[in-house]
Amino acid sequence: MVVSNKGVLFKAIPTGHPVIGEHFEVVDRTIDIENFKLGENELLLKNVYISLDPYIRERMREPHIESYIPPFHVGKVMVGDGTSVVIKSTHPQYHEGDIVAGFTGWEEYTHIKENDEEMNATGRFCLNHAKDSNFPLTHHSHLLRIHGLTAYRGLVNFGNPKKGETIFVSTAAGAIGHLVAQIAKIKGLYVVGSAGSDEKVDFLLNTLKIDAAFNYKKVDIDKALSKHCPDGIDIYFDNVGGEILDRVLLHCNRFARIVVCGMISQYNIRNQKEKYGIKNIDQVFAKSINIIGYLISDFWTINNDTFSKDMEEWLESGKLIYKEDITIGIDNIPQAFLDMYAGKNLGKSAVKIFDL
Amino acid sequence: MVVSNKGVLFKAIPTGHPVIGEHFEVVDRTIDIENFKLGENELLLKNVYISLDPYIRERMREPHIESYIPPFHVGKVMVGDGTSVVIKSTHPQYHEGDIVAGFTGWEEYTHIKENDEEMNATGRFCLNHAKDSNFPLTHHSHLLRIHGLTAYRGLVNFGNPKKGETIFVSTAAGAIGHLVAQIAKIKGLYVVGSAGSDEKVDFLLNTLKIDAAFNYKKVDIDKALSKHCPDGIDIYFDNVGGEILDRVLLHCNRFARIVVCGMISQYNIRNQKEKYGIKNIDQVFAKSINIIGYLISDFWTINNDTFSKDMEEWLESGKLIYKEDITIGIDNIPQAFLDMYAGKNLGKSAVKIFDL
Repeated sequence: MVVSNKGVLFKAIPTGHPVIGEHFEVVDRTIDIENFKLGENELLLKNVYISLDPYIRERMREPHIESYIPPFHVGKVMVGDGTSVVIKSTHPQYHEGDIVAGFTGWEEYTHIKENDEEMNATGRFCLNHAKDSNFPLTHHSHLLRIHGLTAYRGLVNFGNPKKGETIFVSTAAGAIGHLVAQIAKIKGLYVVGSAGSDEKVDFLLNTLKIDAAFNYKKVDIDKALSKHCPDGIDIYFDNVGGEILDRVLLHCNRFARIVVCGMISQYNIRNQKEKYGIKNIDQVFAKSINIIGYLISDFWTINNDTFSKDMEEWLESGKLIYKEDITIGIDNIPQAFLDMYAGKNLGKSAVKIFDL
Repeated sequence: MVVSNKGVLFKAIPTGHPVIGEHFEVVDRTIDIENFKLGENELLLKNVYISLDPYIRERMREPHIESYIPPFHVGKVMVGDGTSVVIKSTHPQYHEGDIVAGFTGWEEYTHIKENDEEMNATGRFCLNHAKDSNFPLTHHSHLLRIHGLTAYRGLVNFGNPKKGETIFVSTAAGAIGHLVAQIAKIKGLYVVGSAGSDEKVDFLLNTLKIDAAFNYKKVDIDKALSKHCPDGIDIYFDNVGGEILDRVLLHCNRFARIVVCGMISQYNIRNQKEKYGIKNIDQVFAKSINIIGYLISDFWTINNDTFSKDMEEWLESGKLIYKEDITIGIDNIPQAFLDMYAGKNLGKSAVKIFDL
């Protein structure tokens, strides 16, 4: 049975924002599932959801540039976090019908080989318990896994939040930010968020009910921080870097913690000279500030039971809302990725490829 | 008895490097010690040593600019850390002949009033035990107090050093740096230092016997760090900020700690636009780096017994060398201050005003 296996091809390395057709695009391909032969310990996956995340831009770079994550190879299908069903397997750990999460191709069907560095960098997780759960499948692969853990560990382990303190969250309506903002509220903090549209500000104030929010595109950042954080900033959860980080340093209180899980504002800048230079870094010693960077992949192998327990309880009791922004259809992946980069998503961006 | 009481007057706020005669200078004054009347709880001090420290430049600023330490007032005598003898006292805690350390005027005799914010900001310490000690007086006021504690606490508490790791220390021949470098050697680290002259590099390699050192004025910083830190940097003890910090970020290993006790390269820059912008700050999350700023004044009130015990033992056993760069005579304070800022000192800068 030969069926469609469209995939998003990485065509060329962009210097600024990627352009559809020039740097990446969906190409028509087919796959003969019936006659598809697997080697030893291999899988054929049918991809259900593809997760769209800002760090993917970091992989669309020249291979000689070092970074924390390997570059993509031109001419190959792009790769990201995904949720899939196993449709063929010669691997003893996975069986036909299993639901798995992990790196997969931006395509309809993905062939996973053992020791495939590209596909196994973060391991693969069996989500069969998701079938019997009241939570949607996406919650298991994102909220209860990578994004939830990024928010939870960053705030709880590194932010060291104390009741009554002020936290400022940039991209507060984004995949990680809207979780951080809510966990901070649960922990009794005064929560201030920024976002890039009035619709998102409305979501932060009226749906998430955080204490203050502003559209950073419409205000003077300094004045907005003075107005909305009248007692200064004790924790800054940074997902953007650049100018906002520079201004926040001036509004930090003594012993403030700046938790950094990404710097989306700088990912599309490949020319070192064009990068934003942080000038207020001297506040770090003047105010005894602690800046803590982390990669959530370092947390896979430790015990995350408390995280899972807290998250499921908050979700079931309605204390925490998980907002998803789901695009339908593989043909729409490139545009959905650009839209996420342009900040058009509200909450976690993902693309649904098939109905389960 | 009327005697000379020369003092260094703060005449005008400098915009760049201070100029003698224009921004500060020694002025001839006198004091009638015999007839000097003290109010309640007051002291008259004869200053023995004046400590010269980079942060003093930060106080020579416009009063409206906020900082971690108050600005100096134009027309008044400058103030710094000093060691003095009490020659008159109405304060129950201090008696004639006591040796005290704390903020004092850059002058021969200083009148200390109770609740004098300027003079009591860091409290005053009685150093009478120094009389019976084998260590010189300056060791008690600097090595065994502010500078030793800055080096020790920064490295041990925040650097979290592990045997075999690589530490890079900028201003490694300076007051704090040469202590950090030696404590790091004692802790079993691979120690690399930078300094601003060949003489200092020689001191680091042949007197302190650290593992590698270079003159940052003569090399390409990137190449020097690649060459001298072949296994990358695990701890950076930062006293300078600016370009070196920016380059170090690229040479850091995963989970590196950057301990910041000052940023001397930026103190003479008052125009925000001229400040150095750190462009590699994104390494913080890419490498899970922790940047920790601190002010040693926060450590006065905690138990520092371990520090005192370690330091005295290392000093007595010859494991640690305390290098001082002492200028003689109050008339030479302004030039000695500029020399320290120009990096002409080797070790801790101080001016001896009187023989004890």
